[in-house]
Amino acid sequence: MSPDPVRIGLLGRGTVGRAFAELLAERAGAVEAASGRRPELAGTLTRSEGDFGEILGRSDLIVELIGGTDPARAYVLDALRAGRPVVTANKQLLARHGEELFGVAREAGVQLRFEAAVAGVIPIVRVIQESFGTTEVAKVFGIVNGTTNFILSEMAATGAAYGDVLARAQELGYAEADPTDDVNGADAAAKMAILARLAFHTPVTLGEVAYEGIEQVKPDDLAYAKELGLSLKLLGIAERHEGGISVRVFPCFLYAGHPLAPVSGPFNAVMVEAPAITEVTMSGPGAGGVQTASAVLGDVVSILAGEAPVHETRQELPVVTDVVSSFYLHLEVADRPGVLAKIARVLGDNEISVKSVVQRGVDDDARLVMVVHECLESRFAAAMQEIGELEDLRSAPRSIRVIEEEFV
Amino acid sequence: MSPDPVRIGLLGRGTVGRAFAELLAERAGAVEAASGRRPELAGTLTRSEGDFGEILGRSDLIVELIGGTDPARAYVLDALRAGRPVVTANKQLLARHGEELFGVAREAGVQLRFEAAVAGVIPIVRVIQESFGTTEVAKVFGIVNGTTNFILSEMAATGAAYGDVLARAQELGYAEADPTDDVNGADAAAKMAILARLAFHTPVTLGEVAYEGIEQVKPDDLAYAKELGLSLKLLGIAERHEGGISVRVFPCFLYAGHPLAPVSGPFNAVMVEAPAITEVTMSGPGAGGVQTASAVLGDVVSILAGEAPVHETRQELPVVTDVVSSFYLHLEVADRPGVLAKIARVLGDNEISVKSVVQRGVDDDARLVMVVHECLESRFAAAMQEIGELEDLRSAPRSIRVIEEEFV
Repeated sequence: MSPDPVRIGLLGRGTVGRAFAELLAERAGAVEAASGRRPELAGTLTRSEGDFGEILGRSDLIVELIGGTDPARAYVLDALRAGRPVVTANKQLLARHGEELFGVAREAGVQLRFEAAVAGVIPIVRVIQESFGTTEVAKVFGIVNGTTNFILSEMAATGAAYGDVLARAQELGYAEADPTDDVNGADAAAKMAILARLAFHTPVTLGEVAYEGIEQVKPDDLAYAKELGLSLKLLGIAERHEGGISVRVFPCFLYAGHPLAPVSGPFNAVMVEAPAITEVTMSGPGAGGVQTASAVLGDVVSILAGEAPVHETRQELPVVTDVVSSFYLHLEVADRPGVLAKIARVLGDNEISVKSVVQRGVDDDARLVMVVHECLESRFAAAMQEIGELEDLRSAPRSIRVIEEEFV
Repeated sequence: MSPDPVRIGLLGRGTVGRAFAELLAERAGAVEAASGRRPELAGTLTRSEGDFGEILGRSDLIVELIGGTDPARAYVLDALRAGRPVVTANKQLLARHGEELFGVAREAGVQLRFEAAVAGVIPIVRVIQESFGTTEVAKVFGIVNGTTNFILSEMAATGAAYGDVLARAQELGYAEADPTDDVNGADAAAKMAILARLAFHTPVTLGEVAYEGIEQVKPDDLAYAKELGLSLKLLGIAERHEGGISVRVFPCFLYAGHPLAPVSGPFNAVMVEAPAITEVTMSGPGAGGVQTASAVLGDVVSILAGEAPVHETRQELPVVTDVVSSFYLHLEVADRPGVLAKIARVLGDNEISVKSVVQRGVDDDARLVMVVHECLESRFAAAMQEIGELEDLRSAPRSIRVIEEEFV
């Protein structure tokens, strides 16, 4: 009398794949209670075992946990074309080939779900798609890479250099052996491309996301920042502007009252702002295998429970690149009269106004640390160019963005 | 060629009702894009206008924004029995009559959704039901009443007395003319009954929630607490125990590192803990009319988009009342030798160990402020009884729960 079980084809048996298979067995009863159908594993494809076509033939639903774009892309496309809903945790695949995948899912009339691809245990994909699906989202931003948040928190707490803290993160398992995509911002950029697409219902590809990493952050930037009441985060920001959107990833100082300022260690946090909701902040640990598997299972249950429509973009918004930002500015200059005046003049000429200054002598030189109010980034770049050419400069000027806004 | 519009019957035209009608008109296009069907208002029932039966007859879906249990309960039951899905923001109705309403919805095979009933703009109902629907949730807790959080934040910041801050909250619109249900914890208790039901898949009624309010909080409790690094919140906690659950609301001190400690002003924040997800924290402003209307619209879209199953409880867990807690303890005692020893002996006899003490002389008396480690609440109550009977006491002992656990 009970309906047929739902047969799940699992692609990949790494950390997340194994955790998913275990969780599926453990929670099969709960899945049946929630969805009315009992799940069972129809087969698992690994590098050395199993045949994709055969597993697809035996499955009602495909879970893709291989990672990377090849052969994951081909498998997901085949599965969707064969009318099988797909759950994936693959952020690179979605950020690079989202349009193609969503298009094929739409044609085939099946679901493609991907909660596990973004922001660890935080169910941000569901919240943006479903809770805020008809809301005019103004901004989605946050800390979407736990590795870099751990590194920046440790640097601020201990004063240690970037390389030393990275080594420690690797020992603790918070950073991979090859941490490149985490520390240079590429991982966060992929996640922001996905979130921007969902929030603004417009196609966004990875190539349109401007990103910077944390490799250049110096301990003394963090020390000066502490005096100014600032903490440093690698932020991803997707924002609506007049006539378009911007999607960017960069290290950024936050004032102490900001909801993201207390988020430290290997955590993720995402904020959504919209007139109809004001703002919502969601935070939690960056995901390990079990947490990712749990997000994948949530998507499986959602597919079994109902026939939500295939995600559609509704518009094509241009990406705006020259936006306004505040900046922290660190200058090493000769300690002689008139230097501050010259720098202030360059800023003034570029219509940039100064919010705060800390100056301190170091041997024959002086360090000048400033925060400037919001200005067009192109103006700031022009000012930095001019300042860099002053003969009083001892080294290239350094700058980091700042979120100025003060919260409740 | 486009499908028939979906006709929505709106019950109530107060602040939220009006905001919903406006938002529905404004976002009709977005609703159609998300769900495939264009919404239109079939009629609005107010105290003086409209006939419920007639509006029901013309509607595909009912939105209940009257509030209170009568006549809201009868209308919602009639609508469900007539096969109409219902969206409501009515926490009292769900907390008091949830079993009956969910039972009728199940029989009729239609949805009853209620995101707007709990925690302002935070989509906690959807996240618990859908993202964590098959997760073994250990604990759901947080700040679910913005009025009391505003009052406690203001008392801590200004040192002002409860009554003065309440008056200010009323001026600012953060407290109602009759604030009773907010300040005595009843409003938070209704929300926690709803959340506990969802998280643990077990029936929980309002009568099973033990609650205390903030009316007795004194400015000097907050002043002493600051010295100990604590901040005070009105917390709702629903927790799984061996053999059952507990659901409670009480004022509680938090250490500075706790994720809920920085949540100040008229904000809500909810944490979900489970082995498979570790923890997720969600926060945002307590809802005004527009925010509540936005949550209602999200539910409408979800109903239009799919046929999610009717919410089912899966078990009946007993409510455990004697649980372990830490406590802050404030005693005014005669300033003479041996008093601390007597108090310490009473605590020791009840197997309660002390974590920290602050003692200070005030005229001929002394104030003794302690934090004790976790103990069974019945033991603590026995110790308080004994201490209250000591001749050295100048006034009745005061106590407030503390969350001891220190976070990342």
